[in-house]
Amino acid sequence: MERRTQVRGGWRGDMCNARFVGTELCAPSRGTLHPRATPVTSPFALLQEILVGKYGEGSKLIYELQDQGGELLALRYDLTVPFARYLAMNKITSMKRYHVAKVYRRDNPATTRGRYREFYQCDFDIAGQFDPMIPDAECLKIVHEILSDLQLGDFVIKVNDRRILNGVFAVCGVPESKFIPACSIVDKLDKMPWEEVRSEMVGERGVSPEAADRIGEYVQLHGGLDLIERLLQDPKLSQNKLAKEGLGDMKLLFEYLTLFGITGKISFDLSLARGLDYYTGVIFEAVLLQQDNEHGEEPVGVGSVAGGGRYDGLVGMFDPKGRKVPCVGVSIGIERIFSILEQRLEASEEKVRTTETQVLVASAQKKLLEERLKLISELWDAGIKAEMLYKKNPKLLNQLQYCEDTGIPLVAIVGEQELKDGVVKLRIVATREEVNVRRESLVEEIRIRTSQC
Amino acid sequence: MERRTQVRGGWRGDMCNARFVGTELCAPSRGTLHPRATPVTSPFALLQEILVGKYGEGSKLIYELQDQGGELLALRYDLTVPFARYLAMNKITSMKRYHVAKVYRRDNPATTRGRYREFYQCDFDIAGQFDPMIPDAECLKIVHEILSDLQLGDFVIKVNDRRILNGVFAVCGVPESKFIPACSIVDKLDKMPWEEVRSEMVGERGVSPEAADRIGEYVQLHGGLDLIERLLQDPKLSQNKLAKEGLGDMKLLFEYLTLFGITGKISFDLSLARGLDYYTGVIFEAVLLQQDNEHGEEPVGVGSVAGGGRYDGLVGMFDPKGRKVPCVGVSIGIERIFSILEQRLEASEEKVRTTETQVLVASAQKKLLEERLKLISELWDAGIKAEMLYKKNPKLLNQLQYCEDTGIPLVAIVGEQELKDGVVKLRIVATREEVNVRRESLVEEIRIRTSQC
Repeated sequence: MERRTQVRGGWRGDMCNARFVGTELCAPSRGTLHPRATPVTSPFALLQEILVGKYGEGSKLIYELQDQGGELLALRYDLTVPFARYLAMNKITSMKRYHVAKVYRRDNPATTRGRYREFYQCDFDIAGQFDPMIPDAECLKIVHEILSDLQLGDFVIKVNDRRILNGVFAVCGVPESKFIPACSIVDKLDKMPWEEVRSEMVGERGVSPEAADRIGEYVQLHGGLDLIERLLQDPKLSQNKLAKEGLGDMKLLFEYLTLFGITGKISFDLSLARGLDYYTGVIFEAVLLQQDNEHGEEPVGVGSVAGGGRYDGLVGMFDPKGRKVPCVGVSIGIERIFSILEQRLEASEEKVRTTETQVLVASAQKKLLEERLKLISELWDAGIKAEMLYKKNPKLLNQLQYCEDTGIPLVAIVGEQELKDGVVKLRIVATREEVNVRRESLVEEIRIRTSQC
Repeated sequence: MERRTQVRGGWRGDMCNARFVGTELCAPSRGTLHPRATPVTSPFALLQEILVGKYGEGSKLIYELQDQGGELLALRYDLTVPFARYLAMNKITSMKRYHVAKVYRRDNPATTRGRYREFYQCDFDIAGQFDPMIPDAECLKIVHEILSDLQLGDFVIKVNDRRILNGVFAVCGVPESKFIPACSIVDKLDKMPWEEVRSEMVGERGVSPEAADRIGEYVQLHGGLDLIERLLQDPKLSQNKLAKEGLGDMKLLFEYLTLFGITGKISFDLSLARGLDYYTGVIFEAVLLQQDNEHGEEPVGVGSVAGGGRYDGLVGMFDPKGRKVPCVGVSIGIERIFSILEQRLEASEEKVRTTETQVLVASAQKKLLEERLKLISELWDAGIKAEMLYKKNPKLLNQLQYCEDTGIPLVAIVGEQELKDGVVKLRIVATREEVNVRRESLVEEIRIRTSQC
C-alpha cells in the first residue's frame, strides 16, 4: 500500500494546495477511491459535440481530430468542461479535486510570453451543494497562496459576479439575448479604453448608445466592501433580483476573505467579465502588476496568471436528466508563471542544477571501470544518487571538471591504494578537501555531507 | 532560485531513477540548462512524415490529426522518436534524460489489463558516444531497480541483440531484405509456439522451410554467460561479423550486470526480437512471471512491463547531414504497472487515503463559521494541511464521521468555551482522545502528532 502511495508520490502537484491530491495518471474509468478528493483526469480528446457551445468566442480555437473510426473528436480546450462531464457521467455530486494536464488551442501562440498551442493548465475545483461563498472563498485563498508563495511580485485578484453584470445590463436596458455578447465586449476593458469598448458595443453588438453609456458608468467601478455597500443601495441596481443576489454574495465573500486576511489583494472590479460562456456567478482573475524596474526596462508582459469562477449549470448540460451540480474552480496559468520565473532566472545568471546527483564515482588510475561499477552499484542500492562517466578510462581531471560543470558536490574516488586500504577518497568539490572514508561508512558519510548542502 | 526548484519539484518522476531529473513541463524550444540531464519534453503532435517508417507494424495505430492549417499531423506514438528528433534538431550529442508523458495509439484497448488508447509512458534514455555497454548496463540496472522496488513479484529481463538476430538470419540463409519481417515474426514467440511462428515465417514471409528450421534451432535458446560463450564458439555464427560483435558486447554486458549483482533476473533470450524498426543493437524486455496463487486463481495477465534497446541510427534520420548520435533507452509501462498495483489493492481491501489532510477544523456549536474560517486560515498559512466542511452550521457528528470516512487523523474543535480559554480542542480520531491545546501551540502540536502517523 505504502508502495502505491510512493509511486504516485512523484506525480503530486505540489504547486497546488497541499490539501488535495490529484494526478493525471488515473484513467477516468477506474472509479473513485474517495468521494471528495479523488484523483481525476479526463481524456485528451472528446467528441466534438461535447465541446461545442461551451467556450463562446474561444470555440474557433478548438483542435479537431480525425479518429479514422468515424467519430469526430476534438482536443481538450480546458479542464473544466471535461471535469463537468466526468461528474455528470459518474453521477458524482460532491468532489474536490485538482488536475494538472495539457490543453490545446489553435491559437497564434506568443511563445515568449509563455503562450503555446499545447500548454499545461492546473485546475482546482470544488463541486457540490454547499453554503454560499465558502468554497468560492477557498478558491481565492488558494490563488492568493500560490501567487504569494511563488514570489511573482505584486498582484491583484479581480472579482466580479456574472449576476451583477447581467443585472447591470438589464437595468441599463440591454435585452437578455445580448447579455453574453455584451459580456465578452466588457471583458476587453483590460486591454482597451472604455471609448473603444463602447463603440464596439454600439457598432457591432447592437447595444443602444444610451444603454452603453449607462453600462459605462457601472463597469468602470472598482473597489472593496464600500463599493459593494454602495451598489446595494444603488436605486436602479438594487431593484434587480439577480444583481441583488450577486451583491449579497459578494459581500459575504468579502467577509470570508477578510477572515482569510487577503482582501488587500482583492479588487471588486465591475469590468471583469471573463470570456467563457459557462460562468454563472462569482468570477475572478489574478493579474500581475507592473513592477518597478531599476533598469527602466519593460516588465515581463504576462498579465493574467489565474482565472476562474462559478459554473453551476455546466454539469447539468451533460446529465441526461439535467441534474445540476454547482461548481466553482480556478485555473492556474502555470506555463505563463514558469515563463516569468525562467526569464527572471536568466536575468539573475544563477546556475540551476537539473539533477540531484550527490556524488560522482571516479577513478584516479586506468583499468578501474569494474571497481567503479561495483561502487556505484553499492551506492545506488543504498539510495544514493550517483553518476559516473561512461568511459573505460576517464581522466581524473575530466571527471572533476564534470562535477564543476554540473554542480555535483562530491566525488568518490577509487584508486589502487584506496582499494587495498578498504577506503574511498571522498572529495568535496567546493573546497577541494579530500578525506579517506572507510568503505562501509561511505553511504552514511555522503548522506551527512549532502544533507548539509 | 530555490523557489523554482520547489515548483518543479512536484513534477519529478520519482518512479524513474532518482539520479536524473526530467519533466514534461519544459517546452522543447526553451533550450537546455544542462548538457547531460536536461528536462526534455516533445510536442504531443508532430508532422506525420516524422513518424512514418519508424514503427514497423505499429504504424497502423498512429493517430492522425487535422491541423486545419494545412499540415498533416499525427499524435505521438512513443517518446523515443520525438526524443531522437529533439536531439537532431538541437544538435545535442550527449544527454541523459527521462520523460513521463502520454502517447496515443489507435488500438483496441484492453482496459482491464491496463491498456488504453491514450496512456503514459515513462522513458529513460542515454544518448552519446560512450564506451560499449556501460550505458546499456545502466538501463538494465534501472529497470531492475524499479521492478524490485515496486515489489511486483518475480520478473525476468530478457536480453538480446538485433545484430545477433540478424547474424542468425544471415547464417540461416535469409536474404537481408527479409531481416525485418523475419524479426517481427520471431517476436511472436512469447505468444505462440515455435511451430506456428515457423509456418507464418514460411507461409507469409517467404522464408524457405530449411532456413526456418535452422532459425528455430537458434531462437529457442536462452541462458546466461554460458550460452554466450557457446555461441561465440558456434562454427556458423562465429563466422558472421554482426553476430560476433553482438555476442562480444553481450558478454561485456553480462560482466557489467554481474558487477551490478542483477544477473539472477537477466536471461539472454534469442527469441526476443522487439517489434520496432529502429533498434540496432541490444534489446531488452522485462516480463512479470506467473505467480503462485494460493487460491488457485489466474494471476493478473500483464506480461511485459518494460522494454527498450539501442537505436544508434534514429537521430541521424532527423539530422540534415545524417550525423548519428548513438542512443540506448528504456520505456517503463507505468499504466500496466499501476493496473497490477490497483488490482492487488482491491484484493487486499485496504483503504487508501487520497488526500494528505492532517486536520479537520470543526465546531461543536452553531454560529462558529467565522471562527472556523479564521482558524483554518491560520493553519493553512502555517503550512498545515487542513480542511473544513463547507457548511455554516455542520453537526459535530457529521464532522467526526467525515474524518472517519476519509482517514483524517485529527480534528481541531473550536467552541465558545475554548475560544474564551484561548485553546483549541484537539481530537485524535483513532483513539477518540481529546486534549486542549493552547492556540499558539496548535500548529506545533499538529505537526508532532501527524509526523508520528
